[in-house]
Amino acid sequence: MSTFGSIFRVTTYGESHGKSVGCIVDGCPPGLPLVEADIQTQLSRRRPGQSNLTTPRDEKDLVAIQSGTEFGITLGTPIGLMVRNQDQRPHDYSETDLYPRPSHADWTYLQKYGVKASSGGGRASARETIGRVAAGAIAEKYLKLAHGIEFVAFVSSVSSIVMPFIHMEDDRLFPQDFWELLSTIKREDLDKDPVRCPNKEVSERMREYFMQRILEAKAANDSVGGTITCVIRNVPPGIGEPCFDKLEAKLAHAMLSIPATKGFEIGSGFKGTTIFGHQHNDPWVKKDSHLGTKTNYSGGIQGGITNGENIYFRVAFKPPATISQAQNTATYDGVDGVLAARGRHDPCVVPRAVPIVEAMAALVIMDALLIQQSRKTAASLIPPIPNIPPTMNAMFSHSTEEVKAETST
Amino acid sequence: MSTFGSIFRVTTYGESHGKSVGCIVDGCPPGLPLVEADIQTQLSRRRPGQSNLTTPRDEKDLVAIQSGTEFGITLGTPIGLMVRNQDQRPHDYSETDLYPRPSHADWTYLQKYGVKASSGGGRASARETIGRVAAGAIAEKYLKLAHGIEFVAFVSSVSSIVMPFIHMEDDRLFPQDFWELLSTIKREDLDKDPVRCPNKEVSERMREYFMQRILEAKAANDSVGGTITCVIRNVPPGIGEPCFDKLEAKLAHAMLSIPATKGFEIGSGFKGTTIFGHQHNDPWVKKDSHLGTKTNYSGGIQGGITNGENIYFRVAFKPPATISQAQNTATYDGVDGVLAARGRHDPCVVPRAVPIVEAMAALVIMDALLIQQSRKTAASLIPPIPNIPPTMNAMFSHSTEEVKAETST
Amino acid sequence: MSTFGSIFRVTTYGESHGKSVGCIVDGCPPGLPLVEADIQTQLSRRRPGQSNLTTPRDEKDLVAIQSGTEFGITLGTPIGLMVRNQDQRPHDYSETDLYPRPSHADWTYLQKYGVKASSGGGRASARETIGRVAAGAIAEKYLKLAHGIEFVAFVSSVSSIVMPFIHMEDDRLFPQDFWELLSTIKREDLDKDPVRCPNKEVSERMREYFMQRILEAKAANDSVGGTITCVIRNVPPGIGEPCFDKLEAKLAHAMLSIPATKGFEIGSGFKGTTIFGHQHNDPWVKKDSHLGTKTNYSGGIQGGITNGENIYFRVAFKPPATISQAQNTATYDGVDGVLAARGRHDPCVVPRAVPIVEAMAALVIMDALLIQQSRKTAASLIPPIPNIPPTMNAMFSHSTEEVKAETST
Amino acid sequence: MSTFGSIFRVTTYGESHGKSVGCIVDGCPPGLPLVEADIQTQLSRRRPGQSNLTTPRDEKDLVAIQSGTEFGITLGTPIGLMVRNQDQRPHDYSETDLYPRPSHADWTYLQKYGVKASSGGGRASARETIGRVAAGAIAEKYLKLAHGIEFVAFVSSVSSIVMPFIHMEDDRLFPQDFWELLSTIKREDLDKDPVRCPNKEVSERMREYFMQRILEAKAANDSVGGTITCVIRNVPPGIGEPCFDKLEAKLAHAMLSIPATKGFEIGSGFKGTTIFGHQHNDPWVKKDSHLGTKTNYSGGIQGGITNGENIYFRVAFKPPATISQAQNTATYDGVDGVLAARGRHDPCVVPRAVPIVEAMAALVIMDALLIQQSRKTAASLIPPIPNIPPTMNAMFSHSTEEVKAETST
Repeated sequence: MSTFGSIFRVTTYGESHGKSVGCIVDGCPPGLPLVEADIQTQLSRRRPGQSNLTTPRDEKDLVAIQSGTEFGITLGTPIGLMVRNQDQRPHDYSETDLYPRPSHADWTYLQKYGVKASSGGGRASARETIGRVAAGAIAEKYLKLAHGIEFVAFVSSVSSIVMPFIHMEDDRLFPQDFWELLSTIKREDLDKDPVRCPNKEVSERMREYFMQRILEAKAANDSVGGTITCVIRNVPPGIGEPCFDKLEAKLAHAMLSIPATKGFEIGSGFKGTTIFGHQHNDPWVKKDSHLGTKTNYSGGIQGGITNGENIYFRVAFKPPATISQAQNTATYDGVDGVLAARGRHDPCVVPRAVPIVEAMAALVIMDALLIQQSRKTAASLIPPIPNIPPTMNAMFSHSTEEVKAETST
Repeated sequence: MSTFGSIFRVTTYGESHGKSVGCIVDGCPPGLPLVEADIQTQLSRRRPGQSNLTTPRDEKDLVAIQSGTEFGITLGTPIGLMVRNQDQRPHDYSETDLYPRPSHADWTYLQKYGVKASSGGGRASARETIGRVAAGAIAEKYLKLAHGIEFVAFVSSVSSIVMPFIHMEDDRLFPQDFWELLSTIKREDLDKDPVRCPNKEVSERMREYFMQRILEAKAANDSVGGTITCVIRNVPPGIGEPCFDKLEAKLAHAMLSIPATKGFEIGSGFKGTTIFGHQHNDPWVKKDSHLGTKTNYSGGIQGGITNGENIYFRVAFKPPATISQAQNTATYDGVDGVLAARGRHDPCVVPRAVPIVEAMAALVIMDALLIQQSRKTAASLIPPIPNIPPTMNAMFSHSTEEVKAETST
Repeated sequence: MSTFGSIFRVTTYGESHGKSVGCIVDGCPPGLPLVEADIQTQLSRRRPGQSNLTTPRDEKDLVAIQSGTEFGITLGTPIGLMVRNQDQRPHDYSETDLYPRPSHADWTYLQKYGVKASSGGGRASARETIGRVAAGAIAEKYLKLAHGIEFVAFVSSVSSIVMPFIHMEDDRLFPQDFWELLSTIKREDLDKDPVRCPNKEVSERMREYFMQRILEAKAANDSVGGTITCVIRNVPPGIGEPCFDKLEAKLAHAMLSIPATKGFEIGSGFKGTTIFGHQHNDPWVKKDSHLGTKTNYSGGIQGGITNGENIYFRVAFKPPATISQAQNTATYDGVDGVLAARGRHDPCVVPRAVPIVEAMAALVIMDALLIQQSRKTAASLIPPIPNIPPTMNAMFSHSTEEVKAETST
Repeated sequence: MSTFGSIFRVTTYGESHGKSVGCIVDGCPPGLPLVEADIQTQLSRRRPGQSNLTTPRDEKDLVAIQSGTEFGITLGTPIGLMVRNQDQRPHDYSETDLYPRPSHADWTYLQKYGVKASSGGGRASARETIGRVAAGAIAEKYLKLAHGIEFVAFVSSVSSIVMPFIHMEDDRLFPQDFWELLSTIKREDLDKDPVRCPNKEVSERMREYFMQRILEAKAANDSVGGTITCVIRNVPPGIGEPCFDKLEAKLAHAMLSIPATKGFEIGSGFKGTTIFGHQHNDPWVKKDSHLGTKTNYSGGIQGGITNGENIYFRVAFKPPATISQAQNTATYDGVDGVLAARGRHDPCVVPRAVPIVEAMAALVIMDALLIQQSRKTAASLIPPIPNIPPTMNAMFSHSTEEVKAETST
C-alpha cells in the first residue's frame, strides 16, 4: 500500500497528472521546530536539472505544510504536506497508448488495476518519491536534533565506473580508508560534486571517465545505472526488532521500494560471502562508554539490532527504462512494432536518488527508534527485581533516580 | 515484531531454551487439504545433519497442528503450529556469560532488552526459522494447488566458488542457459545433491573444489558463507503493491529478515547497473494468452508488480558467526581476552537455508496475491461504465464471460 | 493514529487553523466512476447551518480530488482529497489560553503532546470529521454500485425525546413497525426533515416538543445530546472477521471514534440483556436464495459475521462541550475561576452527525467486504477435494458454475 | 483477524476441537517477573463451574509458557502461551449437522468459510477467550507494577435486575455513592460474591431476587443476559490516540469483540444524552499534582485521551444463544423443523465474563500506554526551543537533567 512505518508513519498520494502530490506524516514527536525550509532543502536536492547528468527540466516542487504545526513547531498531530503539480494536462501519450513501454510499469499497472492512467504506470512516476523525501526530511530533523544521527548517501558507481573501495583487495574486503570515509563524509562537501561522489580526487577521475560515456549515452539517447552507498552515523545501540523486522530487513524493504532499484547489500554484503568466518567476525573492543567493534563487516547491525557502529549499505539502480531511442517491442495487442523515441529524460538518476535513499533510511531509523524508546522506557519503570540471576546481566537498573524522571508519563 | 504479512499473516514465537517453538498462521484460505506431512517435508529439509557440510546433530523437529484444521482440511481459522524443543535445559554458557560472541546478537540483545537469555541472543537462534518454514509450507501448498506457482531455491555459490551464470560475459549479463535453468530446475532433483546445486556437472565441479576447503574450514573450526538463488514460477501478472510495498521490496524485506543474510538482488541486480538502458530494457513479445518479455532482466517484476515472467533473486549469507576456534575479543565489561573454542557447528548454512528462502518467498507471494485477488474481484463487480475513454483500456469489463476468465487468476 | 482500515484505508490530517483538512484513501477498487460531486453531497449534509438546530455559520467545504482518478474514473491508486480551511488566522483564544475548557480536549491534548495548538485540542475539532465523510462517500459509492448496499442513519432521540421504538413494550423489545422502518427508510425522505427523523408524524411530534427546549437551550446558551440509529441494508452474508475484528467490534470502534460519542449498541443492545434466551434467539427461516431469520435481535451479525439481515445499531452523542454560558472551573495552573461565555455554537450536533455515522459505517463495511472477497476468491480456486466429510458441508465447491454465482457476492 | 494491538500485540489460535488453544504475546517489556501462576489466576476466574449460576463442568485450563521468559523473568521476546484442550474428540453434533443453531455462528461461519467445523462456529467458542485472558493477565501485571493501574470489573445487572446506580435520579445521572464505589471496589472482595456484585447489601438483594429466576431459567433450560461495569484506576493522563484510535474507541472495539456482547457505553453513556451541556461538562479543579475534574461524566477520557480520572464503562451481554430447550427453526436446507434440546450450558455468563472484560481492557491500556511513552520520551529529547510562544504552554521542558536521564537510549 502507500503507507510506510508503524508508529512514525508516512502515507503518500499522487501521480504526475493530478493536482498535487504529497503525504501525511503521522506520529511525529511534538515540540519539534519545523518549517517548510527544513523540508525544501532535501526536495530541492532531488529535483532534476542540477547537473548535466540529469534532465534539464526545471521543476519547482515547493512544499506547503497543511497541518500539524503552529508557530513553526510540531503539534504531534498528522503533518499534511503538499506539492503542486505544475502541469496537470494529460500529455500526448498517443504512442504509449499503443505500446507498453519496455521495462516500465505500463503493462503491469494495467494488469493490476484493469484501467490505465494516460501517463502509463501512474504511481510508478519519479514524482511519487516527493512525498518520501518530504517525510524523510522531518524524520532526519528530529533524529539530528535529538540524537545527533546523520545520514549521508553518495554515488559509489555509475555504470562500470566504480569507486575503488568496493573492489576487494587481497584478504581485506575494503581498503584502509573506506571506513574512515564513512565516518567523515559530509553532505555539504558532497553536494559540491555534480555526481555526488565523496572524495575529490576520486570524483575527478570518475567524472573524466564517465562523463564522456554519459554524454555519449545522452547523445545516443541511452541511459546508465549505478549504485548509491549510504552511511548512518550515531544510531544508538539496541535499535531494530528481531525476527521479521530486523533493521537490515526494513532498510532493504525501504530501498527496494525506491523506483528502479534492483539490489541491496549491508556491511560486507555479497563480497562478504567469500571470506571465512574468522575473518568476517567483528571482535569486540572497549570504546568510550560502551563496547564497539574493531572491524565493521556487520554494517552496524547484529541479529537485526544496531550495535552503535556506523550502519552502511549499498543500493543498485538499474539504467532508467525511459530512453529516447526507438525500441523494437510489441503493442498491447501483441503486434510487433517499433516504439519511437521521444522527449528528453535523465540518462542517469543516481545523483538525484541520493536524497531519496537518505529519506527512506531516515524513515526506517525513526520508526525503529521510537519503538525501542517505548520498550526501554517501559522496562525502566518496572520496580527492581530482588533475585535476578547475575547472568541475566540486567541493564535497565531501575534506580529510583531514573524512574523518577520517567514516571511523570 | 514477530508478525509477517497483512492478510496472510504469520506470527512466530520461541527460543532454543523454551518448551517449544512455533507460529500462528492467520488468514489461510478455507478448504485447503492440510496435514502435518505437508509441513514436515520442508521442516525436514531445513534440519541439520543432512550432509557433511552441515552439523551432524540430529534434531527431530516434528510439527503438530494445534488448530485451524479438521479432517485434514483447513477451516479458515488460525492454524497453530508447534515444534517441541528437545532439550530445554539451560546450557553451559559460562564462557559466553563473560564474552559477547563476536558478530553474534548477544550484545545487541542485551542493549535492546536490558536482560539476556542464557543462550545469548535468544531469538537470534536458527530455531527461530522453524516457524517461518512451517508457515511457508502452508502458503506453498495453496499456491501450488490453486495457481501452479512453484518456488525453487538453490545454492549458487559457496565462499568464492560461484556458479558460472553469475559471472557476466561480454555484453550479456547471464549465459545462454541461465534463464532456461530457472524455468526447469526442480526441487526433487536438487535434493539429490548434498549442496543443493542444480546442474549435475556444475555441482560435481563445485563439490570437488570446495568440499576440500569446507573440510579444511571444518578442521580449522572455521565457517564459510555463500549465496542462494531462488526462482518463483507461474505467478500471475498484477501481483504486488506499488510504492512502498513493491513485490521486490517485500521479497527483500523477507530475505534480509533471515538470520545471517547480508544482501539481496533481483533480476539483473548489481550487475545490471553496469549495462546500458537499451540493453537492460526487456522488449515485449506476444506469448500465449498475454504479453511476455524477450529477456527478463526485470526479474519478473516491473514497477513493483509481476509481469508473469519468472521471478528470480539472489540472497547473500555471511559465514556463520559461530566458529569453533578461539577468538581475540573483549568481555561485556570491555576487558580484552580470548573467547575459547567450543562445540560443533555448521561450517556452512546455505544448503540448509534453501527451504527458509523458499518459505519466506512463499509468504510474500501469498499475501500479495490475496490482496490482489480482493482488488480484482472488487473491480469486476462494478457495473459497466458507459463512456470510458478508450485509452483507459479498461480490462475488467465486468461481463459474465470475463469474470469467469478472471477467477482462474 | 490517523489511519482507519486495513486494505481499504483512510488516513486523515488537519486542524481548524491549518491550510486545509483532508485525507488519503488507499485501496479503492479501480474502475469506479468518481467525481467531486459524489463526495460533496455527503460533505454538504454534514455542514453546519442547515437548520435552526445547528449553527448558522456557512462553511463551504468544497472538496478537491488531488490524485487517484482520471476522466472521472478511479485508477486504483491513492485518492488524495483536500478541503481548504476558509479562515486560517489563529483565533482570539485569550480566554482559553488560561482555562482548559471543561469536557473539551484542551487539557488532555496538552498532557499528551506537551504543546498546545492555539485552538486548544487541535484535532478534536469537528473539522477533523471532514476527511472521514469524504472517504466514506467513496466507500458508499462502491458498495451501492457493486452490491446495492445502503446506509441510512437518522436521529432517534434528542435529549429525552425518544422515538417510540426504542422503548420496550411487554415482551417485545421493539414495536411492530420498527424493523419495517429499517427496511424502508430513505435518505432523501429523511433530509426533508430538519432533525433527520424518519417518520413524518413522529418527527412532527418530536419537533414540536423539543424545538421549544432546543430554542430555550440556545437562548440559555446550553446544549443537548441525542442518539443516532443507523441501518445497513443488503450486506451479503459472511462479512466480518471472527475474534478481535468482529464486524460489531469494528463498528463500535468506528462509532466511538466520532467526537462526542459515549455509547454504541447493536441489535437488541442494552435492552436485549433483559429478556430470556428463548426470546432473544432469532429462528432460521427460508428466504429467497438463502436462510434468513424471523426476528433480528442479532442486528444482522452472528459470531462477528453478517447473516444477510439488516445491520442496525445506535450511537449516543453527549451534549456538546462547547456552550456559550459562563462556567465555574479552574485555570491550567489550578486556580478557580470563571470561564466566560463566548461565540455561537451548535446546541445540538446529532442532525449534522448523521452523515458522519454513515461514513464511518461505510468504511467498516468496505474494508471487511474486501477482505472477505479475497478469502472467497482464494477458496474458490482450490481444486475439488475428493473425500471431504459431508458434515463439513463444503460450499465453495469450485465448479465453474458456482464460481460464477459467487462473484456476484 | 486474530491479532489485537499495535506494539503490545496478542495473536490467538484455537477451537474447542483442536489440540490446544493459546496465544503469542509480542512486545512485552523485558525484565518483568512472570510465571505461570500470574496468568493462571485470571484463567481460573473465567473457568466455568464457580457458582451455580454457571455450568458445572470442570475445566482445568492450565497454562504453559512456551517461550519469552527465563528464570521467571520476561526476555522481551514473544511469549508463547498454551492451554491444552482436554477433550479433542469430535463431539456428537449430528443434530447440529442439520440445523444451524439460532443466534449462533454456525450459519455465518459456513457463509464465511465455505466449510464448517464439526463444532459449528469453530472460533465462536468460549474457549477462544482463554488466549485473551492469558494475554491480559500479562498486561495487567506490568501495568500494576510499573504504574499502579488497576482493573476491576463487576456484574452490574443480570436480566432486569439492575444495580441502583445505573438508574438516573432527578437531575443527577448517578447516585452519590457510585463514583465512590468505582474508586474503592476490589477484586478480592468481589470474588467472595458468587455473582461478582460489588456491594454486599446490594448483592444480597440481587441474588435473592434473581437466583430464583436463574434457577427457573435453568430448569426451563433457558438463559439470561446482563451487564458488566468495569473501572480502570490510576491511568496517567495523556494516554490514547486522537481521531480513529481514541481510547474509548479501542475499548469499544475490545469489548464488542468479546462473544455475546451487544453494547458498550463509557462515562455518562446513553443516559448522558438526556441531560444538558452545562450539567454534563466536568469542571476542572486542582487535585494534588495536577488538574482533575469535579464530576466525571467523561469517564476519564476527553477527546480520546485520558485525563487521569477513573475510566469506567459498561458492557451488555445478551442471553447466551445455547439453550437446552427445543427450538422451532429451519435446517441448513431451509426446511422448517425443531432443533431438539441437548446438553447443559451456562444459563448466565456474566460472572465468568468479568475477567475477560478486565483482560481486554488491560490489552487496550497497555498498547496505548506504550505508544504514548514512546512519544513522550521522544519529545523530551528535543533540545529546548528558544522562542516558543508562551501560549503553546510547552510542558516537556527538556531540562538538561531529564534529557540526561533519557539519552542513554
